[in-house]
Amino acid sequence: MAADQLSATFSALADPTRRAILSRLAHGEATVNELAAPFEVSLQAVSKHLKVLEQAGLISRGRTRQWRPCRLEARPLAVVADWVSEYRQFWETGFDRLDEHLRQIQAAAKENDE
Amino acid sequence: MAADQLSATFSALADPTRRAILSRLAHGEATVNELAAPFEVSLQAVSKHLKVLEQAGLISRGRTRQWRPCRLEARPLAVVADWVSEYRQFWETGFDRLDEHLRQIQAAAKENDE
Repeated sequence: MAADQLSATFSALADPTRRAILSRLAHGEATVNELAAPFEVSLQAVSKHLKVLEQAGLISRGRTRQWRPCRLEARPLAVVADWVSEYRQFWETGFDRLDEHLRQIQAAAKENDE
Repeated sequence: MAADQLSATFSALADPTRRAILSRLAHGEATVNELAAPFEVSLQAVSKHLKVLEQAGLISRGRTRQWRPCRLEARPLAVVADWVSEYRQFWETGFDRLDEHLRQIQAAAKENDE
């Protein structure tokens, strides 16, 4: 396990099955069986993924009921959103540059047409 | 290496030294030596981290100059921001609930005071 919380979150998110599980849980609580159904992996593999998500605080599991439904916990995702937003200016500048580049190409193409 | 781009990005971000390198590069291009200076790790270890970041498309390296300065590439971070924004409603709801809980506690405390 990564020692710091943000590393643990990123590490848990670095797997398409785990991200698909979170996406499913965004629609409501689900049991391990329900979560495993759409994937071509064993229940055991899904249980492992759930353990990683739970340790990273991205899901919680019911304690009282036997089937222990899983539930999305979004707080670590808020931390990710906060972290990545620090870099917003860089991708926005990048896209602006691309836009400018496309405008120049279109302007040149139009000039050639005339 | 993770097969999909988003997994590769999350995996590269799941390390505090690699995130610190990105943070440094947000202030401008830097050489491997400059990037290694603040960390208690070998040049070799920093080079390894740079390779992971480069493979994930999070940095690029100059080809023409011998010292090959590193440069932040923010596009994969835009994809992360886009992915995580899908969950915004969940943490906003969560915080709203917390706010409501705190308001109730404060209201109860005030009632006891009166």
